[in-house]
Amino acid sequence: MSRVTRDDCAALDRADPLARFRAEFDLPEGVIYLDGNSLGALPRATSARLDQVIRDEWGSDLIKSWNAHGWIDLALKVGDKIARLIGAQSGEVVVTDSTSINLFKLLAAGLRLRPGRRVILSERDNFPTDLYMIQGLCEMLGGGHELRLVERGGVAGAIDADTAIVTLTQVDYRSGELHDMAAITKAAHDAGALMLWDLCHSAGALPVDLNAAKADFAVGCGYKYLNGGPGAPAFLFVAARHHDAFAQPLTGWMGHAEPFAFGPRYRPAAGIRRALTGTPPILSLAALEIGVDGLIAGDMTALRLKSMALTDLFIRLVEQECADCGLALVSPLAAAQRGSQVSFRHAEGYAVMQALIARGIIGDFRAPDVMRFGFAPLYLRHMDAWDAVAALSDVLASRAWDRAEFRRRAAVT
Amino acid sequence: MSRVTRDDCAALDRADPLARFRAEFDLPEGVIYLDGNSLGALPRATSARLDQVIRDEWGSDLIKSWNAHGWIDLALKVGDKIARLIGAQSGEVVVTDSTSINLFKLLAAGLRLRPGRRVILSERDNFPTDLYMIQGLCEMLGGGHELRLVERGGVAGAIDADTAIVTLTQVDYRSGELHDMAAITKAAHDAGALMLWDLCHSAGALPVDLNAAKADFAVGCGYKYLNGGPGAPAFLFVAARHHDAFAQPLTGWMGHAEPFAFGPRYRPAAGIRRALTGTPPILSLAALEIGVDGLIAGDMTALRLKSMALTDLFIRLVEQECADCGLALVSPLAAAQRGSQVSFRHAEGYAVMQALIARGIIGDFRAPDVMRFGFAPLYLRHMDAWDAVAALSDVLASRAWDRAEFRRRAAVT
Repeated sequence: MSRVTRDDCAALDRADPLARFRAEFDLPEGVIYLDGNSLGALPRATSARLDQVIRDEWGSDLIKSWNAHGWIDLALKVGDKIARLIGAQSGEVVVTDSTSINLFKLLAAGLRLRPGRRVILSERDNFPTDLYMIQGLCEMLGGGHELRLVERGGVAGAIDADTAIVTLTQVDYRSGELHDMAAITKAAHDAGALMLWDLCHSAGALPVDLNAAKADFAVGCGYKYLNGGPGAPAFLFVAARHHDAFAQPLTGWMGHAEPFAFGPRYRPAAGIRRALTGTPPILSLAALEIGVDGLIAGDMTALRLKSMALTDLFIRLVEQECADCGLALVSPLAAAQRGSQVSFRHAEGYAVMQALIARGIIGDFRAPDVMRFGFAPLYLRHMDAWDAVAALSDVLASRAWDRAEFRRRAAVT
Repeated sequence: MSRVTRDDCAALDRADPLARFRAEFDLPEGVIYLDGNSLGALPRATSARLDQVIRDEWGSDLIKSWNAHGWIDLALKVGDKIARLIGAQSGEVVVTDSTSINLFKLLAAGLRLRPGRRVILSERDNFPTDLYMIQGLCEMLGGGHELRLVERGGVAGAIDADTAIVTLTQVDYRSGELHDMAAITKAAHDAGALMLWDLCHSAGALPVDLNAAKADFAVGCGYKYLNGGPGAPAFLFVAARHHDAFAQPLTGWMGHAEPFAFGPRYRPAAGIRRALTGTPPILSLAALEIGVDGLIAGDMTALRLKSMALTDLFIRLVEQECADCGLALVSPLAAAQRGSQVSFRHAEGYAVMQALIARGIIGDFRAPDVMRFGFAPLYLRHMDAWDAVAALSDVLASRAWDRAEFRRRAAVT
């Protein structure tokens, strides 16, 4: 293969049909941001929209805004928009709470739909909060409820007649490896189990088709590829066929059939609304809507093509520029098997990443030794991949990472 | 008693030591806002602070802000500020999730601290979402767990050896009536039960002293008197003496001892942090902090004195101006027995309130027939009480409420 040059990357950027979307983001000067998989960048429209919500809605119309500005339905409205990105119908997705809490709701609901089955099956390397939430749920329920963990690749074969629910994150947070959503969902169903997908690293990163895969439940995050802002509320999906029987335990007033009747008994609302619990966070919801709108405009198919091109390019450039530097590719080599990130293992990965960040190349680190580089295709350029690899190559060759300040662990890594 | 005039009210405003705080709020022209108990008014500082968080923190420093701008500790920092308003120590309060979800956490934790006891005791007229959450919890746990409801006044006498937790809202959302926090907490403890207070209508409305009352747990709302904005995150309190044994079931990564070690087993963080679940909503937290700062500046003792004066004045003016209008006082007549609201029953309460709102007097309605008037003492004037009662008197005398448009129920009442 011929050597890729920086000019080649510039040419790819000139031909990029999504290039214009970069201007929709407020990206700091001198920074190449490869961590949109941890916290998406700021859409330019967000600040003005939040100011409008704060001054014109909250400030001027005060409590009347729940009706006048549609706050009471905003969680469903933004849910419907997210539905378009993940292969769901209108009315199957709602924005609420955090990913962790939504997992709890859906897992508890799933156990009720599969009485007598007491196992929640997942993989050992699933994102930790998913496992922690299952542990908390099983401990609370007692009665033999159990989280069963298997190695990646062993999930489909481990589903049995005790399995109530299988839950996996579609895109592995460390490696970026994709699960085959349709195949695993089918394996779960064949064994009589339900399937819950965590889309935290999928939604907005690649086209997802929950209904084509016949998924039962899904959860996902608003603050990564959806660009909803730090700690943006999360979403959940319940397939329409479960809506009538679906019952989750966090039965707050916003999930009530008539919240403003103030009756003493909980009666679930029809449809996805019964997945709600407390009062929705309007400022955060409004910010998330802006982020989601950007992805809808970008078109997920076009975004996926660019994402695959960027991550392929990054891997190729690392091979070209950083051979024998102690980097080992963690992500699958084939783009079709990856999400929108590339990860490398390095014995000094933490310090190397800190040295990169000091140069304005922002990726992140996941213990014990994984450097992650996320490629949000809405705002990244091929040139960014080139410049990031050039910096990485220099940091490694010059051992620029070998300084105490880069080894000192921060609270958040 | 001599008749109170509008000039008397103006004189009271001139003498009001808290008068200057009104200018800290962005209140719409021509509106008298008596619904700060549903959604607090907008502090003037909020918009600029949010713009700073959005542009300078999220936009410019991106993922680094979790460390650089202290996002990772913001939930505890704002919790410590709220602690000062409710008689808690630093480290006993954290901001997270919604009131409903926090209730679930604390109730589940409380049941674990009282093994063998299966009753959660509350009052029939407690705020519905509190009751719904208990119903959801008991149904999920099964095994004889039960919500037992008694009439107001009968709570202390109903606590028995089966009672694990007593939970009450300190200020009744309809009537504004105050419970005796210390006495009921003592009755719960005398019977071996735990006490959980819902402070939704207390925090920021009157001085609360959780530790003086020896309360075990509390929850409360960020969007009412704390002026945190629509759907602002909620807070929870766990008395320090319970921190070691406290275990709640929504065990997400933010409550883990080492969230960024990404280990497979949940290990609770020390202290109040273990009450956290998912990633905190930074934009909403930053807005809440501004609201809380305003109350700390106002001083809760001074605020309580003004609140009692305003609500006393409102009751007196209604007696004076609206005699024989079909209004019945729902709130206690004695200010010391009320929160910061006054409620009246009226057979056509819904339509009367809509007619008032059409004139810019914004209170709210709680089914079946209660009109609520909240008096947030930071931004309301004695004159506002006069003008509101004048409008109420006119609406009732002229039957201005008797129009189809005022009878039509909105989604949110």
